[in-house]
Amino acid sequence: MRIYDIITKKRYGAQLSGEEIDFVINGYMRGDIADYQISSLLMAICINSMSESETNHLTKAMLNSGDTVDLSSLGDLSVDKHSTGGVGDKTTLIVAPIVASCGGRVAKMSGRGLGFTGGTIDKLEAIDGFKTVLDQKEFLAQAKDVGAVVIAQSGNLVPADKKLYALRDVTATVESIPLIASSIMSKKLASGAKSIVLDVKVGRGAFMKTEDDAKKLALAMIKIGRSFDRGVTALITNMDIPLGYCVGNSLEIYEAISVLKGQGEKRLTTVALELSASMLSMALKIDIEEATKMAQESISSGRALEKLQQMIYAQGGRLDIINNQDSLLGDKHTYEYRATGDGYIASVNAERVGTCSMLLGAGRVKKEDKINHRAGLFFKKSYGDYVKRGDTIATLYANDISLFYGAAKMLDEAILISEEKPSDNILIYDIIK
Amino acid sequence: MRIYDIITKKRYGAQLSGEEIDFVINGYMRGDIADYQISSLLMAICINSMSESETNHLTKAMLNSGDTVDLSSLGDLSVDKHSTGGVGDKTTLIVAPIVASCGGRVAKMSGRGLGFTGGTIDKLEAIDGFKTVLDQKEFLAQAKDVGAVVIAQSGNLVPADKKLYALRDVTATVESIPLIASSIMSKKLASGAKSIVLDVKVGRGAFMKTEDDAKKLALAMIKIGRSFDRGVTALITNMDIPLGYCVGNSLEIYEAISVLKGQGEKRLTTVALELSASMLSMALKIDIEEATKMAQESISSGRALEKLQQMIYAQGGRLDIINNQDSLLGDKHTYEYRATGDGYIASVNAERVGTCSMLLGAGRVKKEDKINHRAGLFFKKSYGDYVKRGDTIATLYANDISLFYGAAKMLDEAILISEEKPSDNILIYDIIK
Repeated sequence: MRIYDIITKKRYGAQLSGEEIDFVINGYMRGDIADYQISSLLMAICINSMSESETNHLTKAMLNSGDTVDLSSLGDLSVDKHSTGGVGDKTTLIVAPIVASCGGRVAKMSGRGLGFTGGTIDKLEAIDGFKTVLDQKEFLAQAKDVGAVVIAQSGNLVPADKKLYALRDVTATVESIPLIASSIMSKKLASGAKSIVLDVKVGRGAFMKTEDDAKKLALAMIKIGRSFDRGVTALITNMDIPLGYCVGNSLEIYEAISVLKGQGEKRLTTVALELSASMLSMALKIDIEEATKMAQESISSGRALEKLQQMIYAQGGRLDIINNQDSLLGDKHTYEYRATGDGYIASVNAERVGTCSMLLGAGRVKKEDKINHRAGLFFKKSYGDYVKRGDTIATLYANDISLFYGAAKMLDEAILISEEKPSDNILIYDIIK
Repeated sequence: MRIYDIITKKRYGAQLSGEEIDFVINGYMRGDIADYQISSLLMAICINSMSESETNHLTKAMLNSGDTVDLSSLGDLSVDKHSTGGVGDKTTLIVAPIVASCGGRVAKMSGRGLGFTGGTIDKLEAIDGFKTVLDQKEFLAQAKDVGAVVIAQSGNLVPADKKLYALRDVTATVESIPLIASSIMSKKLASGAKSIVLDVKVGRGAFMKTEDDAKKLALAMIKIGRSFDRGVTALITNMDIPLGYCVGNSLEIYEAISVLKGQGEKRLTTVALELSASMLSMALKIDIEEATKMAQESISSGRALEKLQQMIYAQGGRLDIINNQDSLLGDKHTYEYRATGDGYIASVNAERVGTCSMLLGAGRVKKEDKINHRAGLFFKKSYGDYVKRGDTIATLYANDISLFYGAAKMLDEAILISEEKPSDNILIYDIIK
């Protein structure tokens, strides 16, 4: 077998065999196949795509490249959740306690933010003392005892994906449904949960720009999950506008607590409940109506909030943030971003809001960048709200006032004020099983 | 400008601007753009192709990457010739003396063989003492005084093509008409001749497998030539079967001398005369009939052979090979490859014959390989000839008898003997101006 012939095959749109895909991934990981050969193959895949069976094989080959987590001791109760990435998406911080408080087991690995999108691990690290690195034993013990544990992805989980993704990121070969699907699913499968709920974001602040592409990606991932005997449900949700009022790490912890206190912003609360219900339905093998009711009750009873406290405690975080929620609010310096005219907020461009948060110090341009956990934006008005000139639309937080200028300029381009009330923005496009 | 955006553009089939192409080539040569980014772009070009203006720009950018040869002192008389590579193709050794003896000026850089195809420089180096490296001054002086000079391509002639080709060669991005056309033409343009005759080979022993592809390549190269104000004529010639009786370096010098003595194999002689006539027609601005007559007379009068002698003398080669032609014949060991049955030779697969010659030591598997200038094959019978069992079809030469086994096995697969006389094989498909 020669890599040259495999590249040629894909160049002309032919289907690669399982052996050929194994040869590529193993050879690449061993260093026998060069980056420039893989990037050539990746471009051929981007243009000519891959079949379902090729995608399944690629997922398997990547999965086999490193360690896997054994969650079999949790039985069918283990359930994972993955979002394709958005702006202001703090749902993991909400659904993990909800699901755990209802009897599901969420033993989860999460990532860090890059560019305009945030990452759950960055948000958790905004809690003083919170440990995002646990050993396998501690991880499993907390999954059993508390029911919810979220740590940073381990070093050797799907190393092939890490290597491939780094290459795709600099060779314009990211946008490919089979490649995205196998990248996400190899990590989810390696993480060991029996069921998986996928939140596929669509819109200006998401990777998938159209509903159609988002559905294609969801279907590809569901098919992969099935071929590995995992239950998979995918929600297709809107990411034209940020999810909730807060963007930035400690601010998003603040907002997650608000939701669990029953005081959350409506759209964020709805998505969190839908995700929780889908997770509970699979983990507990109950119908979606019953699962939805359980999730709602876990909030109204205070049990979900209590579960968040247990999780923070177990991972060493400062507990007083629950009762002293305001301690999570913002940084040294604040800036009131105000309406320059009267009218309805007709657009809040999620990608630009994410970039604004990054400019304030909450996010990374490059992987190596350090972030400021307390920087970000707190919206006081949202999509569809009526504002008068001078009203604060958002409060911006940063540790350096010189950052506000660029951030405010970015917000000028993110927000549109119009005389006409905008139509309702769809929140959940579809739920696919 | 970012390479990522340029790759993305080509990935979706858009046209790159001249500035973008310059950015790519200059950045790659400076080392700012990595191999893995270029190979991704090359694959996108292979699949989505390039327009005429992109191809012209790429040629220009590559041309500008290194030195160029100034042949303006030769006026309009300078004429170059390029073959896309074949098996047994020793036409340069024949046409250079013919054209020079008729008043044209052939100041040419040639390459070495790789894989199953041979290279003119290897052939010339089979002549004892022949210098294939001359400085610019010697090169131009010989071009003026003798009219024919052939040297190895200089180190810094189109370095971008060298770097790109090496990458294409390992990333399955060789087969692309715009890339092949710009690669060949950038070198031809850098070599400085006012007119260029292209011999685009088509068939089993050629890069282009179909007449249609060969014509497309020819047209692409003619268009590039025109945009640089050079006269270009392309011959589309057959390379299903080797050209002439000899394959291997010193053997091909032998056969070139035979043609110039008027004793050449018919097909080889025809192609050499057609190429010479096209070159003379452009260099001397005469019609093709007159040019053909001049070329024929240069052989019958002995002037072309005399010109070859002058060229060999000027470049330091041993002159007695002209009169003592047999001294060029073969190596220590010979092997008679014989017919195993009676019938017509219905196929002589050029690629396999080329591989056979390589196995005998005449060619290279890798660029660094050393070759044996005296190894090769001398066919005694050719396509369409009738043979009886035991007749010698070809004499094989090598410096190690252990090489004959593999070579003969390869010939078994190259040669087909059939009861029916095969139809005539087309030699020249087309001449395009």
